[in-house]
Amino acid sequence: MTNKINITLSATKKEKPNADQLEFGRTFTDHMFIMDYSAAKGWYDPRIVPYEPISLSPSTMVFHYGQTVFEGLKAYRSSEDKVLLFRPDKNMHRLNLSNDRLCIPQIDEEFVIEALKELVSIDKEWIPTAEGTSLYIRPFIIPTEYYLGVAPSKYYRFMIILSPVGSYYKEGIHPVKIFVENQYVRAVDGGTGKAKTGGNYASSLKAQEEAEKRGYSQVLWLDGVEKKYIEEVGSMNIFFKINGEVITPSLNGSILEGVTRNSILHLLKHWNVPVSERKLSMEDVYNAYKEGLLEEAFGTGTAAVISPIGELFYNEENIVLNNGETGELTKKLYDTLTGIQTGNHEDVFNWVVEVN
Amino acid sequence: MTNKINITLSATKKEKPNADQLEFGRTFTDHMFIMDYSAAKGWYDPRIVPYEPISLSPSTMVFHYGQTVFEGLKAYRSSEDKVLLFRPDKNMHRLNLSNDRLCIPQIDEEFVIEALKELVSIDKEWIPTAEGTSLYIRPFIIPTEYYLGVAPSKYYRFMIILSPVGSYYKEGIHPVKIFVENQYVRAVDGGTGKAKTGGNYASSLKAQEEAEKRGYSQVLWLDGVEKKYIEEVGSMNIFFKINGEVITPSLNGSILEGVTRNSILHLLKHWNVPVSERKLSMEDVYNAYKEGLLEEAFGTGTAAVISPIGELFYNEENIVLNNGETGELTKKLYDTLTGIQTGNHEDVFNWVVEVN
Repeated sequence: MTNKINITLSATKKEKPNADQLEFGRTFTDHMFIMDYSAAKGWYDPRIVPYEPISLSPSTMVFHYGQTVFEGLKAYRSSEDKVLLFRPDKNMHRLNLSNDRLCIPQIDEEFVIEALKELVSIDKEWIPTAEGTSLYIRPFIIPTEYYLGVAPSKYYRFMIILSPVGSYYKEGIHPVKIFVENQYVRAVDGGTGKAKTGGNYASSLKAQEEAEKRGYSQVLWLDGVEKKYIEEVGSMNIFFKINGEVITPSLNGSILEGVTRNSILHLLKHWNVPVSERKLSMEDVYNAYKEGLLEEAFGTGTAAVISPIGELFYNEENIVLNNGETGELTKKLYDTLTGIQTGNHEDVFNWVVEVN
Repeated sequence: MTNKINITLSATKKEKPNADQLEFGRTFTDHMFIMDYSAAKGWYDPRIVPYEPISLSPSTMVFHYGQTVFEGLKAYRSSEDKVLLFRPDKNMHRLNLSNDRLCIPQIDEEFVIEALKELVSIDKEWIPTAEGTSLYIRPFIIPTEYYLGVAPSKYYRFMIILSPVGSYYKEGIHPVKIFVENQYVRAVDGGTGKAKTGGNYASSLKAQEEAEKRGYSQVLWLDGVEKKYIEEVGSMNIFFKINGEVITPSLNGSILEGVTRNSILHLLKHWNVPVSERKLSMEDVYNAYKEGLLEEAFGTGTAAVISPIGELFYNEENIVLNNGETGELTKKLYDTLTGIQTGNHEDVFNWVVEVN
């Protein structure tokens, strides 16, 4: 593969949205990165071009068999006007793990990070600076062969698009009400749960829709085999603080290995807060609640960073956490992590990567 | 919704492939059907237009979250030059079941069948007539909102495209070797297994690829909970003939309700062949084999119609069926069903619908 990125700048620049009008994932910048794949050429023709529609035959495999993968990360502009990325190597490594599960050819992780930096640099004026805002980065791969047979595509397109975003939740960081799902299943061992692929999100919509109708923001997913063990919350990883110990479900094959999840584990260990990754049943959580030992709970993910949980609806009962308020540790984790990401907090782990 | 279909005919006609060069799903006809959806308008602007690429923003939800559904059926041209469809109502009903699972708005089944007939009628010269050939019909729905949030799309596009096809398996009807999958899982109860959505097919690719490397054509999927019970084979339903009785796994929530599966159940009952839908473990099949009672096995689906199974690789052992040859009942079912579909066999169930 050639590492030369062809750059075609946009003749015109779009108007940027006001910081207070930013929604998640609705506005896109002036440029995008594209490269294509064929077996003969490998990944070829890496290019940055004006953001514009792409044209595909109706028989293109992406419309039929869901062989897609994606990533999500963010760029921030620090108070010193530096452009910062948060652990992009983790995202690109995970993209390759997803590629493997979906039979998509591996990408060159280092090269793609360079491409991403180049793109962010070109569109850096789009990075908002107000509290809670950032530039969301969406790398994704779609199958582009024109074919209706069920088989891995022979052609692919890798793209990166950028979207200036406000907080994922319009209301900002405040505890949400969660419905513990007992009918629908997100993933099962041997399936695609640990890959970031479209189908996982498509299959989650129905449970999410039904939970919303009942007044809950998200669902808490239990394992697909026994419907007992905690897996994820919405499209986030989940943590509980029980009797001073922080617990998150261990990576069992059906849980996505979140970059935020991993970062929080590091931070907690650094702070000497007792923390463990293990199998955790909803019954364990309920018993802790009954004994008065369930202290805090929160979801973690790139989009929302940390989302405190105020209430869990389980077995026709409401489990209220920390009087429905954001827990102390949850808040400290949010402040520290967003502080590191925005360059306002010491980066003891060398997580932040500057875009020159 | 208006039921008036706007028709724009193609100014030029593409060259049709020779019958002996037909592959599955690679060539498409001169026209396609499209209609769009918004919450305000419902399904609107139904139209038949020249087959051509569609243009979509890179942020279109179909590229990210896999909220897609599809169907597959076939049109045949009979020896009397009639254009015949096979049970299109079953497909359109199933499409709506898939829509429900994927949070996609319901379609008007009758109207869509009329649209499909109109499209097939316009492109009827494309229907091949050689043995084993047909016009494959692919209705599908994609989410078209420009948005990166995980939520059901607010906009959709429904399309029908047509592809003249030869046999799904280039080698024609002959028994295939199947690998009984013990690691990967296709679907689990509470997931999307009974819906025809892209993610189910994407998640199957890895197992299929590994089976092929070991010399097997397809995998046989076991249930995702105990990995004991038989579910499907490749992207087909599966039938076993054991000691004179035909058995297919019952519809348990993770198995697709195939139109061919349903038709075969009707045919067998009509012939007074003992048949049952029930939970069937791979151990049951293995024991029947050991006792010399395992007579035939075959997969069923629209693309291949019937695909005889000659060999199953299970627990490091080869189970050879009927000396690796197509079983008598399997052959009779294939001949009868394709006979009905092509108008060469009496249609006792009134399954065939003529396109005028």
